[in-house]
Amino acid sequence: MTTEAPDDTFHVFDTTLRDGAQREGINLTVADKLTIARHLDDFGVGFIEGGWPGANPRDTEFFERARKEIDFQHAQLVAFGSTRRAGVPAQTDPQVKALLDSQAPVVVLVAKSHDKHVELALRTTLEENLDMVRDTVSHLREQGRRVFVDCEHFFDGYHANPAYAKRVVRAAHEAGAEVVVLCDTNGGMLPAQIQAVVRTVLADTGARLGIHAQDDTGCAVANTLAAVDAGATHVQCTANGYGERVGNANLFPVVAALQLKYGKQVLPEGALRETTRISHAIAEVVNLTPSTHQPYVGTSAFAHKAGLHASAIKVDPDLYQHIDPELVGNTMRMLVSDMAGRASVELKGKELGYDLAGDRELVGRIVARVKEQELKGYTYEAADASFELLLRDEVHGGVTGVAPRFFRLESWRAIVEQRPDGTQANEATVKAWAKGERLVTTGEGNGPVNALDRALRAGLERIFPQLARLSLVDYKVRILEGTHGSSSTTRVLISMSDGSAEWSTVGVADNVIAASWQALDDAYTYGLLRAGVEPPE
Amino acid sequence: MTTEAPDDTFHVFDTTLRDGAQREGINLTVADKLTIARHLDDFGVGFIEGGWPGANPRDTEFFERARKEIDFQHAQLVAFGSTRRAGVPAQTDPQVKALLDSQAPVVVLVAKSHDKHVELALRTTLEENLDMVRDTVSHLREQGRRVFVDCEHFFDGYHANPAYAKRVVRAAHEAGAEVVVLCDTNGGMLPAQIQAVVRTVLADTGARLGIHAQDDTGCAVANTLAAVDAGATHVQCTANGYGERVGNANLFPVVAALQLKYGKQVLPEGALRETTRISHAIAEVVNLTPSTHQPYVGTSAFAHKAGLHASAIKVDPDLYQHIDPELVGNTMRMLVSDMAGRASVELKGKELGYDLAGDRELVGRIVARVKEQELKGYTYEAADASFELLLRDEVHGGVTGVAPRFFRLESWRAIVEQRPDGTQANEATVKAWAKGERLVTTGEGNGPVNALDRALRAGLERIFPQLARLSLVDYKVRILEGTHGSSSTTRVLISMSDGSAEWSTVGVADNVIAASWQALDDAYTYGLLRAGVEPPE
Repeated sequence: MTTEAPDDTFHVFDTTLRDGAQREGINLTVADKLTIARHLDDFGVGFIEGGWPGANPRDTEFFERARKEIDFQHAQLVAFGSTRRAGVPAQTDPQVKALLDSQAPVVVLVAKSHDKHVELALRTTLEENLDMVRDTVSHLREQGRRVFVDCEHFFDGYHANPAYAKRVVRAAHEAGAEVVVLCDTNGGMLPAQIQAVVRTVLADTGARLGIHAQDDTGCAVANTLAAVDAGATHVQCTANGYGERVGNANLFPVVAALQLKYGKQVLPEGALRETTRISHAIAEVVNLTPSTHQPYVGTSAFAHKAGLHASAIKVDPDLYQHIDPELVGNTMRMLVSDMAGRASVELKGKELGYDLAGDRELVGRIVARVKEQELKGYTYEAADASFELLLRDEVHGGVTGVAPRFFRLESWRAIVEQRPDGTQANEATVKAWAKGERLVTTGEGNGPVNALDRALRAGLERIFPQLARLSLVDYKVRILEGTHGSSSTTRVLISMSDGSAEWSTVGVADNVIAASWQALDDAYTYGLLRAGVEPPE
Repeated sequence: MTTEAPDDTFHVFDTTLRDGAQREGINLTVADKLTIARHLDDFGVGFIEGGWPGANPRDTEFFERARKEIDFQHAQLVAFGSTRRAGVPAQTDPQVKALLDSQAPVVVLVAKSHDKHVELALRTTLEENLDMVRDTVSHLREQGRRVFVDCEHFFDGYHANPAYAKRVVRAAHEAGAEVVVLCDTNGGMLPAQIQAVVRTVLADTGARLGIHAQDDTGCAVANTLAAVDAGATHVQCTANGYGERVGNANLFPVVAALQLKYGKQVLPEGALRETTRISHAIAEVVNLTPSTHQPYVGTSAFAHKAGLHASAIKVDPDLYQHIDPELVGNTMRMLVSDMAGRASVELKGKELGYDLAGDRELVGRIVARVKEQELKGYTYEAADASFELLLRDEVHGGVTGVAPRFFRLESWRAIVEQRPDGTQANEATVKAWAKGERLVTTGEGNGPVNALDRALRAGLERIFPQLARLSLVDYKVRILEGTHGSSSTTRVLISMSDGSAEWSTVGVADNVIAASWQALDDAYTYGLLRAGVEPPE
């Protein structure tokens, strides 16, 4: 089988890290941005717009670190910036220099294409704006960069003054911009308008065109596809549609439509099957609950509730789904039966090396327990290690909690205080049993969970020296019921690493510390299993 | 001023109570359905599909009570049901009888129009299916009902067997159905496909056509509008897009586009200004958090974060919004973040009632302080109250932390423990000063933050009885640097309410409890200011 990779004739361009970060509630650290860039590259987008180097120190640092730390397999890194300022040569404009300093091979320049914006916001002449576009594009091309130009407010500008809007496109095109991207910056357009304008501009300018749609009318995906219908060959999107105001065109339904409805291979072979996983992973990084009702990737996207549908689905699942959910890595769920649950438990078991297919009763028990746990707030999607412990426990017929247990907790206590001099202290004591020995240890930390972690390790490391190699690499807290204030259920997800592999565990409790304890307990138990320590009887 | 009411030439048809209720997580009581029906009538939709009388007792009861209890001003009530069963006269089919018994003036009949579905799911002949449509429509017309026919799976059916799909439309039309609704039941269509099929079917059958779109490709709003472009004059939607799987075409962006973009008056005069209120009210009834990023009505729909945008908005708000948010009852909001600059601080100040425009140095100080705080992990875009306290502090020239302070902390201590019997205890002690008095109070809770909150309130409520009205309504935790494990920086966002207004505050610290303390401190301080308590000198 040949691997057909998309070529340069169609661009999937992601701007999650730049435009997506404008979403209210998203605040990305450099580490977050690097993680998201890795996911996007993994997914196979052609371009990753990383930010605006020079505009803030975080974005500058991102480009420096991405260059060194990420070995991009599919994507080219893109720096975003603006055309030179009015009256200043591009060569000496510090903002343009920062774009070059970022060493990104591709630069996107935002240019004004709406006459009123040039005059009111940019406060310069229409002619100078054209020169700003030409000069900046030429300068960057001379420096060996690929250049795309984002025409901000293009569609509003086109309606106000079509001749000028097209002059901006021509100026960018003639100066060497590879793609001129028509942006519906205010998001007020509908597909028919987009299609008509893209078609005319393409015919009149001959420039290669791209589309950047915002979702203010709820039509960003359709607007993007309408532009493609009219001849655009470059689509700018964000993961999960994150972006300013309502958001941007959502990458996932756009690429799914292009591949599955248009039959256009725009991602590397096999990548589309990772859609659901990548969508959820990015939601985790930005710390937003994945939308359960997102097209293609939501947990409800292929869930069936209606009785009318359920009986038809028994005849033929394709009667009530527009695509096979596995094509985007999602699964069909019947909300009235555990059919889908059994199948995924079997598949997951197989993945972990357990053949469960022959044991219907065992699979049923595991499904029931997962459902019961998920009702309480646990999630195993992001906590493979906790799921494997649960599965092992059932395989070994255990009902005494999750087996095996290398240690048994007696009690713990955490004290957090802020002293009159403003300093803080965190101290935790753990009492536990391991290999017949009672451990009473205390740890200090810069937070109660850290103190608890240290106390537990202080006791266990003497008995299990293998623990010394383990470290916590991620720790996430989510309050599950937003309506009860600080008395809500808390879910903690922990990721632990032994230097080569990483695993995740989950804990749920009334309070963050108790939930953290559960996740820590699972994480160390799993770590000891991985290290080959023989579980006790 | 005349009130121009929409006439019968265009139908806004709502199916929140029938198709919307299929959404995973929605479970409506009869009382819920009555409340939603009142909101929808208030909003001015022409038709409210209430459910399937006879299919379940809840829906039967709904029709009985709606008839008696609701004095509909705009809407007609619609009963949903299916064509008669194969081989049974419509007159004697109990399901058809239930539709008449509901006494709804309008009936929607669902009919199969996909040949494969007729054979596989209905298990009858293609000819009998046509008879079932004709007989049922005729019978209901004879009984004085208006009849609309929903052609299920129309678009998939049309692609498989266009001749048969059109025969179903003709059969319904000729038997007296007023509107034949083409349904994209599986939701897999894109606007261009919808438009082409609607155009052809309209030309070939002469029937009045409607559209029912599902959102599985993320294009339901655009698909609905594409059908209108092609000549459909009846749109079926649900409030907030609720519905099976991903959901249905969202009523609000559909009517907003029709009125504001097409200039078509489809709601009573003035109704569109109620859009945001109605959307949120219905979300409350179905007990789902209103989507913050829903087009037109989301709290983020007109929120601006980027510095680039903020400076332009100062010049002219219309430069960065596609409509005046008041047209749909929403408002513009400026988010303060480190991406924003002076312009957004000035605008935010204005929103809060401070005129900062004249004082460049003060604005500069506020911007600098916001940036410095955001570097530490604070975020003000989701913490308006903390931002206002910061702003007040700078306005009053203070550098002693955030002024005013009604109380001063001496120290606090929280103890969390898991006892050997498995039970947990959470206890906190707070030592603070207020109005010259030293307070030493202890609180218990189901988590350390809850205990801390209670201890603080126990002390302060005696001195500030106004606090009794305040309650915590949301609590969010975010660990900021994912790579440092449990020793990371923690950010807490708290929302507090006094019953009429809600405000949000932020705290950042090494540990979750210290961060929570800061956010609580701001939240109570702000609450006291709002309650009109005079700040101390």
